[in-house]
Amino acid sequence: MTEYILPLQKLIEEFCRLPGVGKKTAVRYAFSVLGMTEDEVESFACAVVNAKKNVQACEVCGNLSDKPLCAICSDEKRDRKIVCVVEDAKTVMALEKVKEYNGTYHVLGGAISPMNGVSPSDLRIKELITRIGSGEIEEVILATNPNIEGETTAMYLSKLISPLGVRVTRLAYGVPVGADLEYADEVTLLRALDGRRDLK
Amino acid sequence: MTEYILPLQKLIEEFCRLPGVGKKTAVRYAFSVLGMTEDEVESFACAVVNAKKNVQACEVCGNLSDKPLCAICSDEKRDRKIVCVVEDAKTVMALEKVKEYNGTYHVLGGAISPMNGVSPSDLRIKELITRIGSGEIEEVILATNPNIEGETTAMYLSKLISPLGVRVTRLAYGVPVGADLEYADEVTLLRALDGRRDLK
Repeated sequence: MTEYILPLQKLIEEFCRLPGVGKKTAVRYAFSVLGMTEDEVESFACAVVNAKKNVQACEVCGNLSDKPLCAICSDEKRDRKIVCVVEDAKTVMALEKVKEYNGTYHVLGGAISPMNGVSPSDLRIKELITRIGSGEIEEVILATNPNIEGETTAMYLSKLISPLGVRVTRLAYGVPVGADLEYADEVTLLRALDGRRDLK
Repeated sequence: MTEYILPLQKLIEEFCRLPGVGKKTAVRYAFSVLGMTEDEVESFACAVVNAKKNVQACEVCGNLSDKPLCAICSDEKRDRKIVCVVEDAKTVMALEKVKEYNGTYHVLGGAISPMNGVSPSDLRIKELITRIGSGEIEEVILATNPNIEGETTAMYLSKLISPLGVRVTRLAYGVPVGADLEYADEVTLLRALDGRRDLK
Protein backbone atom coordinates (compact mmCIF):
# COMPACT_ATOMS: atom_id res chain seq x y z
CA MET A 1 0.00 0.00 0.00
CA THR A 2 2.86 2.41 0.68
CA GLU A 3 3.67 3.31 -2.87
CA TYR A 4 5.03 6.66 -1.65
CA ILE A 5 7.85 7.22 0.79
CA LEU A 6 6.58 7.77 4.30
CA PRO A 7 6.73 11.58 4.73
CA LEU A 8 4.99 12.00 1.37
CA GLN A 9 2.40 9.32 2.15
CA LYS A 10 1.62 11.08 5.43
CA LEU A 11 1.16 14.44 3.70
CA ILE A 12 -1.10 12.89 1.06
CA GLU A 13 -3.26 11.38 3.80
CA GLU A 14 -3.50 14.75 5.51
CA PHE A 15 -4.55 16.50 2.31
CA CYS A 16 -7.23 13.82 1.87
CA ARG A 17 -8.92 15.20 5.01
CA LEU A 18 -9.81 18.40 3.17
CA PRO A 19 -13.35 18.48 1.77
CA GLY A 20 -13.66 17.12 -1.76
CA VAL A 21 -10.01 16.09 -1.98
CA GLY A 22 -9.42 12.55 -3.20
CA LYS A 23 -6.22 10.58 -3.64
CA LYS A 24 -5.19 12.12 -6.98
CA THR A 25 -5.73 15.71 -5.88
CA ALA A 26 -3.94 15.04 -2.60
CA VAL A 27 -0.93 13.66 -4.52
CA ARG A 28 -0.92 16.76 -6.69
CA TYR A 29 -1.02 19.03 -3.65
CA ALA A 30 1.70 17.04 -1.88
CA PHE A 31 4.04 17.31 -4.86
CA SER A 32 3.39 21.03 -5.09
CA VAL A 33 4.45 21.32 -1.43
CA LEU A 34 7.70 19.51 -2.32
CA GLY A 35 8.17 22.09 -5.06
CA MET A 36 7.88 25.06 -2.69
CA THR A 37 10.86 26.71 -1.03
CA GLU A 38 11.54 25.99 2.65
CA ASP A 39 10.23 29.44 3.60
CA GLU A 40 7.01 28.96 1.69
CA VAL A 41 6.44 25.59 3.34
CA GLU A 42 7.12 27.09 6.77
CA SER A 43 4.70 29.93 6.09
CA PHE A 44 2.07 27.46 4.88
CA ALA A 45 2.36 25.30 8.00
CA CYS A 46 2.31 28.39 10.24
CA ALA A 47 -0.84 29.69 8.56
CA VAL A 48 -2.58 26.38 9.25
CA VAL A 49 -1.60 26.35 12.94
CA ASN A 50 -2.24 30.08 13.45
CA ALA A 51 -5.67 29.99 11.87
CA LYS A 52 -6.74 27.27 14.29
CA LYS A 53 -5.04 28.91 17.26
CA ASN A 54 -6.06 32.52 16.71
CA VAL A 55 -9.55 32.15 15.35
CA GLN A 56 -12.20 31.92 18.03
CA ALA A 57 -15.94 32.41 18.29
CA CYS A 58 -17.09 35.93 19.23
CA GLU A 59 -18.38 35.95 22.82
CA VAL A 60 -21.56 37.75 21.82
CA CYS A 61 -22.60 36.55 18.38
CA GLY A 62 -20.50 33.42 17.79
CA ASN A 63 -19.01 34.80 14.58
CA LEU A 64 -15.36 33.99 13.77
CA SER A 65 -12.96 36.44 15.35
CA ASP A 66 -9.35 36.88 16.34
CA LYS A 67 -10.40 38.82 19.45
CA PRO A 68 -12.93 37.95 22.18
CA LEU A 69 -15.39 40.34 20.48
CA CYS A 70 -15.73 40.17 16.68
CA ALA A 71 -15.27 43.15 14.36
CA ILE A 72 -19.02 43.52 13.86
CA CYS A 73 -19.98 43.32 17.55
CA SER A 74 -17.26 45.78 18.52
CA ASP A 75 -18.23 48.25 15.74
CA GLU A 76 -19.98 51.24 17.34
CA LYS A 77 -21.72 52.13 14.09
CA ARG A 78 -23.62 48.85 13.90
CA ASP A 79 -27.33 48.87 14.69
CA ARG A 80 -27.76 46.68 17.75
CA LYS A 81 -31.55 46.76 17.42
CA ILE A 82 -31.50 44.24 14.56
CA VAL A 83 -30.03 40.74 14.83
CA CYS A 84 -29.64 38.49 11.84
CA VAL A 85 -29.68 34.81 12.87
CA VAL A 86 -27.55 32.60 10.61
CA GLU A 87 -26.39 28.99 10.68
CA ASP A 88 -22.67 29.58 10.34
CA ALA A 89 -19.94 32.20 10.00
CA LYS A 90 -19.76 31.65 6.24
CA THR A 91 -23.26 33.11 5.92
CA VAL A 92 -22.14 36.17 7.90
CA MET A 93 -19.41 36.73 5.32
CA ALA A 94 -21.84 36.24 2.43
CA LEU A 95 -24.24 38.81 3.91
CA GLU A 96 -21.41 41.23 4.73
CA LYS A 97 -20.37 41.21 1.09
CA VAL A 98 -23.72 42.79 0.22
CA LYS A 99 -22.62 45.86 2.23
CA GLU A 100 -26.27 46.77 2.89
CA TYR A 101 -27.06 45.20 6.24
CA ASN A 102 -25.94 47.29 9.18
CA GLY A 103 -27.28 45.27 12.11
CA THR A 104 -25.53 42.57 14.13
CA TYR A 105 -25.53 38.79 13.74
CA HIS A 106 -26.08 35.68 15.77
CA VAL A 107 -24.38 32.48 14.60
CA LEU A 108 -26.27 29.36 15.65
CA GLY A 109 -23.52 26.91 14.74
CA GLY A 110 -25.77 24.72 12.61
CA ALA A 111 -29.45 23.92 12.11
CA ILE A 112 -31.87 21.60 13.86
CA SER A 113 -31.59 18.20 12.21
CA PRO A 114 -32.91 15.10 13.97
CA MET A 115 -31.43 13.01 11.14
CA ASN A 116 -27.92 14.20 11.99
CA GLY A 117 -28.58 14.24 15.72
CA VAL A 118 -28.56 18.03 16.03
CA SER A 119 -31.15 19.16 18.57
CA PRO A 120 -31.97 22.78 19.59
CA SER A 121 -29.75 22.40 22.67
CA ASP A 122 -26.72 21.87 20.40
CA LEU A 123 -27.18 25.32 18.87
CA ARG A 124 -26.50 28.74 20.38
CA ILE A 125 -30.22 29.37 20.93
CA LYS A 126 -29.97 30.00 24.69
CA GLU A 127 -27.43 32.77 23.99
CA LEU A 128 -29.84 34.31 21.46
CA ILE A 129 -32.71 34.33 23.97
CA THR A 130 -30.37 35.94 26.55
CA ARG A 131 -29.44 38.65 24.03
CA ILE A 132 -33.10 39.31 23.27
CA GLY A 133 -33.82 39.34 27.02
CA SER A 134 -31.42 42.27 27.45
CA GLY A 135 -34.14 44.41 25.83
CA GLU A 136 -32.03 46.15 23.20
CA ILE A 137 -33.16 44.04 20.24
CA GLU A 138 -36.25 45.06 18.24
CA GLU A 139 -36.06 42.76 15.22
CA VAL A 140 -34.75 39.27 14.61
CA ILE A 141 -34.15 38.32 10.96
CA LEU A 142 -34.12 34.55 10.53
CA ALA A 143 -31.56 33.88 7.79
CA THR A 144 -31.15 30.12 8.13
CA ASN A 145 -30.70 28.20 4.89
CA PRO A 146 -33.76 27.63 2.66
CA ASN A 147 -33.73 23.87 3.13
CA ILE A 148 -35.56 21.48 5.46
CA GLU A 149 -33.16 21.90 8.39
CA GLY A 150 -33.01 25.68 8.01
CA GLU A 151 -36.80 25.93 7.73
CA THR A 152 -37.29 23.78 10.81
CA THR A 153 -34.85 25.94 12.75
CA ALA A 154 -36.55 29.14 11.58
CA MET A 155 -39.97 27.78 12.61
CA TYR A 156 -38.66 26.69 15.99
CA LEU A 157 -37.00 30.06 16.64
CA SER A 158 -40.03 31.98 15.42
CA LYS A 159 -42.29 30.22 17.94
CA LEU A 160 -39.73 30.75 20.67
CA ILE A 161 -39.03 34.43 19.99
CA SER A 162 -42.43 35.82 18.94
CA PRO A 163 -43.86 35.75 22.50
CA LEU A 164 -40.92 37.92 23.64
CA GLY A 165 -42.43 40.89 21.83
CA VAL A 166 -39.77 41.42 19.14
CA ARG A 167 -40.44 41.50 15.41
CA VAL A 168 -39.42 38.23 13.74
CA THR A 169 -38.78 38.24 9.98
CA ARG A 170 -37.51 35.72 7.43
CA LEU A 171 -35.47 36.38 4.28
CA ALA A 172 -37.65 36.66 1.16
CA TYR A 173 -38.10 33.60 -1.03
CA GLY A 174 -38.21 33.99 -4.76
CA VAL A 175 -36.38 33.43 -8.00
CA PRO A 176 -32.67 34.24 -7.78
CA VAL A 177 -31.49 37.23 -9.80
CA GLY A 178 -29.97 36.22 -13.13
CA ALA A 179 -31.61 32.80 -13.16
CA ASP A 180 -33.74 31.41 -15.95
CA LEU A 181 -37.40 30.94 -14.96
CA GLU A 182 -37.54 27.89 -17.21
CA TYR A 183 -35.20 26.02 -14.89
CA ALA A 184 -36.57 27.24 -11.56
CA ASP A 185 -38.11 24.49 -9.44
CA GLU A 186 -41.83 24.49 -8.64
CA VAL A 187 -41.48 25.31 -4.96
CA THR A 188 -39.33 28.36 -5.69
CA LEU A 189 -41.78 29.55 -8.36
CA LEU A 190 -44.70 29.04 -5.97
CA ARG A 191 -42.93 31.10 -3.31
CA ALA A 192 -42.06 33.77 -5.86
CA LEU A 193 -45.73 34.00 -6.89
CA ASP A 194 -46.86 34.08 -3.26
CA GLY A 195 -44.45 36.86 -2.46
CA ARG A 196 -45.12 38.97 -5.57
CA ARG A 197 -44.99 42.72 -5.08
CA ASP A 198 -46.71 45.67 -6.70
CA LEU A 199 -44.64 47.64 -9.15
CA LYS A 200 -44.98 51.26 -8.28
CA MET B 1 -10.29 43.48 0.55
CA THR B 2 -9.92 41.81 3.95
CA GLU B 3 -13.35 40.34 4.17
CA TYR B 4 -11.98 37.59 6.39
CA ILE B 5 -10.20 38.02 9.69
CA LEU B 6 -6.46 38.04 9.30
CA PRO B 7 -5.42 34.49 10.33
CA LEU B 8 -8.14 33.08 8.10
CA GLN B 9 -7.25 35.39 5.21
CA LYS B 10 -3.62 34.26 5.50
CA LEU B 11 -4.61 30.59 5.43
CA ILE B 12 -6.86 31.15 2.40
CA GLU B 13 -3.97 32.81 0.56
CA GLU B 14 -1.69 29.89 1.40
CA PHE B 15 -4.22 27.35 0.13
CA CYS B 16 -4.45 29.39 -3.09
CA ARG B 17 -0.81 28.44 -3.78
CA LEU B 18 -1.81 24.81 -4.33
CA PRO B 19 -2.28 23.86 -7.97
CA GLY B 20 -5.81 24.36 -9.27
CA VAL B 21 -7.06 25.91 -6.04
CA GLY B 22 -9.00 29.16 -6.47
CA LYS B 23 -10.50 31.48 -3.91
CA LYS B 24 -13.69 29.48 -3.29
CA THR B 25 -11.91 26.17 -2.83
CA ALA B 26 -9.32 27.83 -0.58
CA VAL B 27 -12.10 29.25 1.61
CA ARG B 28 -13.66 25.81 1.83
CA TYR B 29 -10.33 24.24 2.83
CA ALA B 30 -9.64 26.99 5.36
CA PHE B 31 -13.00 26.49 7.05
CA SER B 32 -12.42 22.75 7.17
CA VAL B 33 -9.15 23.43 8.98
CA LEU B 34 -11.06 25.51 11.53
CA GLY B 35 -13.36 22.54 11.98
CA MET B 36 -10.52 20.14 12.79
CA THR B 37 -9.37 19.40 16.34
CA GLU B 38 -6.14 21.01 17.57
CA ASP B 39 -4.35 17.67 17.24
CA GLU B 40 -5.46 17.19 13.67
CA VAL B 41 -4.32 20.69 12.75
CA GLU B 42 -0.97 20.08 14.42
CA SER B 43 -0.54 16.80 12.58
CA PHE B 44 -1.49 18.48 9.28
CA ALA B 45 1.06 21.26 9.71
CA CYS B 46 3.74 18.77 10.79
CA ALA B 47 3.11 16.62 7.73
CA VAL B 48 3.63 19.66 5.49
CA VAL B 49 6.91 20.63 7.15
CA ASN B 50 8.19 17.05 7.46
CA ALA B 51 7.49 16.21 3.84
CA LYS B 52 9.58 19.15 2.72
CA LYS B 53 12.30 18.49 5.30
CA ASN B 54 12.62 14.73 4.99
CA VAL B 55 12.11 14.18 1.30
CA GLN B 56 15.27 14.49 -0.74
CA ALA B 57 16.52 13.42 -4.14
CA CYS B 58 18.27 10.03 -4.28
CA GLU B 59 22.02 10.55 -4.79
CA VAL B 60 22.13 8.07 -7.64
CA CYS B 61 18.89 8.32 -9.59
CA GLY B 62 17.30 11.55 -8.36
CA ASN B 63 14.09 9.80 -7.30
CA LEU B 64 12.31 11.06 -4.17
CA SER B 65 13.65 9.44 -1.04
CA ASP B 66 13.80 9.85 2.72
CA LYS B 67 17.34 8.45 2.76
CA PRO B 68 20.42 9.41 0.70
CA LEU B 69 19.79 6.33 -1.47
CA CYS B 70 16.20 5.66 -2.60
CA ALA B 71 14.38 2.38 -2.00
CA ILE B 72 14.86 1.28 -5.61
CA CYS B 73 18.59 2.07 -5.82
CA SER B 74 19.27 0.36 -2.51
CA ASP B 75 17.27 -2.75 -3.48
CA GLU B 76 19.70 -5.59 -4.18
CA LYS B 77 17.17 -7.45 -6.33
CA ARG B 78 16.92 -4.64 -8.89
CA ASP B 79 18.58 -5.13 -12.25
CA ARG B 80 21.24 -2.44 -12.52
CA LYS B 81 21.83 -3.25 -16.19
CA ILE B 82 18.67 -1.41 -17.25
CA VAL B 83 18.00 2.26 -16.54
CA CYS B 84 14.65 3.87 -17.26
CA VAL B 85 15.04 7.61 -17.85
CA VAL B 86 11.99 9.63 -16.74
CA GLU B 87 11.17 13.32 -16.39
CA ASP B 88 10.03 13.32 -12.77
CA ALA B 89 9.49 11.20 -9.69
CA LYS B 90 5.77 10.95 -10.38
CA THR B 91 6.55 8.89 -13.48
CA VAL B 92 8.68 6.55 -11.37
CA MET B 93 5.65 5.95 -9.15
CA ALA B 94 3.39 5.39 -12.17
CA LEU B 95 5.83 2.83 -13.62
CA GLU B 96 6.33 1.15 -10.24
CA LYS B 97 2.58 0.58 -10.01
CA VAL B 98 2.83 -1.70 -13.06
CA LYS B 99 5.02 -4.04 -10.95
CA GLU B 100 6.67 -5.40 -14.09
CA TYR B 101 9.81 -3.32 -14.49
CA ASN B 102 12.71 -4.54 -12.39
CA GLY B 103 15.50 -2.19 -13.51
CA THR B 104 16.53 1.13 -11.99
CA TYR B 105 15.54 4.69 -12.85
CA HIS B 106 17.09 8.02 -13.64
CA VAL B 107 15.03 11.12 -12.93
CA LEU B 108 15.96 14.06 -15.18
CA GLY B 109 14.02 16.66 -13.27
CA GLY B 110 12.17 17.95 -16.32
CA ALA B 111 12.43 17.99 -20.10
CA ILE B 112 14.31 20.20 -22.55
CA SER B 113 12.09 23.16 -23.33
CA PRO B 114 13.59 26.29 -24.89
CA MET B 115 10.16 27.95 -24.49
CA ASN B 116 10.34 27.59 -20.71
CA GLY B 117 14.07 28.21 -20.58
CA VAL B 118 14.99 24.62 -19.69
CA SER B 119 18.22 23.63 -21.40
CA PRO B 120 20.02 20.25 -21.22
CA SER B 121 22.36 21.62 -18.56
CA ASP B 122 19.36 22.17 -16.23
CA LEU B 123 18.58 18.46 -16.26
CA ARG B 124 20.42 15.59 -14.58
CA ILE B 125 21.96 14.49 -17.87
CA LYS B 126 25.59 14.71 -16.76
CA GLU B 127 24.79 12.33 -13.88
CA LEU B 128 23.21 9.91 -16.37
CA ILE B 129 26.31 9.93 -18.59
CA THR B 130 28.47 9.32 -15.51
CA ARG B 131 26.29 6.34 -14.55
CA ILE B 132 26.54 4.92 -18.06
CA GLY B 133 30.30 5.57 -17.97
CA SER B 134 30.66 3.24 -14.96
CA GLY B 135 30.10 0.38 -17.46
CA GLU B 136 27.38 -1.52 -15.59
CA ILE B 137 24.48 -0.29 -17.73
CA GLU B 138 23.47 -2.22 -20.88
CA GLU B 139 20.14 -0.61 -21.79
CA VAL B 140 18.67 2.84 -21.40
CA ILE B 141 14.88 3.09 -21.78
CA LEU B 142 13.82 6.64 -22.64
CA ALA B 143 10.47 7.14 -20.89
CA THR B 144 10.08 10.88 -21.23
CA ASN B 145 6.55 12.15 -21.87
CA PRO B 146 5.05 11.70 -25.35
CA ASN B 147 4.87 15.44 -26.03
CA ILE B 148 7.14 17.93 -27.81
CA GLU B 149 9.44 18.54 -24.83
CA GLY B 150 9.65 14.85 -23.96
CA GLU B 151 10.34 13.90 -27.58
CA THR B 152 13.06 16.54 -27.89
CA THR B 153 14.68 15.28 -24.71
CA ALA B 154 14.50 11.67 -25.89
CA MET B 155 16.09 12.60 -29.24
CA TYR B 156 18.83 14.58 -27.53
CA LEU B 157 19.60 11.77 -25.10
CA SER B 158 19.50 9.16 -27.85
CA LYS B 159 22.14 11.01 -29.86
CA LEU B 160 24.23 11.48 -26.74
CA ILE B 161 24.03 7.92 -25.44
CA SER B 162 24.07 5.79 -28.61
CA PRO B 163 27.82 6.36 -29.25
CA LEU B 164 28.53 5.03 -25.75
CA GLY B 165 27.68 1.52 -26.93
CA VAL B 166 24.57 0.88 -24.83
CA ARG B 167 21.18 -0.12 -26.19
CA VAL B 168 18.79 2.86 -26.28
CA THR B 169 15.04 2.17 -26.42
CA ARG B 170 11.88 4.27 -26.26
CA LEU B 171 8.48 3.32 -24.81
CA ALA B 172 6.06 2.03 -27.47
CA TYR B 173 3.56 4.43 -28.99
CA GLY B 174 0.06 3.30 -29.77
CA VAL B 175 -3.56 3.44 -28.79
CA PRO B 176 -4.08 3.33 -25.03
CA VAL B 177 -5.81 0.23 -23.69
CA GLY B 178 -9.53 0.76 -23.08
CA ALA B 179 -9.73 3.76 -25.40
CA ASP B 180 -12.13 4.17 -28.29
CA LEU B 181 -10.39 4.21 -31.69
CA GLU B 182 -13.01 6.65 -32.93
CA TYR B 183 -11.65 9.32 -30.61
CA ALA B 184 -7.94 8.63 -31.00
CA ASP B 185 -5.99 11.47 -32.64
CA GLU B 186 -4.35 11.02 -36.04
CA VAL B 187 -0.77 11.04 -34.79
CA THR B 188 -1.49 8.32 -32.24
CA LEU B 189 -3.25 6.20 -34.87
CA LEU B 190 -0.37 6.69 -37.28
CA ARG B 191 2.11 5.58 -34.63
CA ALA B 192 -0.12 2.62 -33.73
CA LEU B 193 -0.18 1.56 -37.42
CA ASP B 194 3.57 2.05 -37.75
CA GLY B 195 4.22 -0.05 -34.68
CA ARG B 196 1.73 -2.85 -35.52
CA ARG B 197 2.80 -6.34 -34.51
CA ASP B 198 2.14 -9.81 -35.88
CA LEU B 199 -0.38 -11.85 -33.98
CA LYS B 200 1.14 -15.25 -33.35
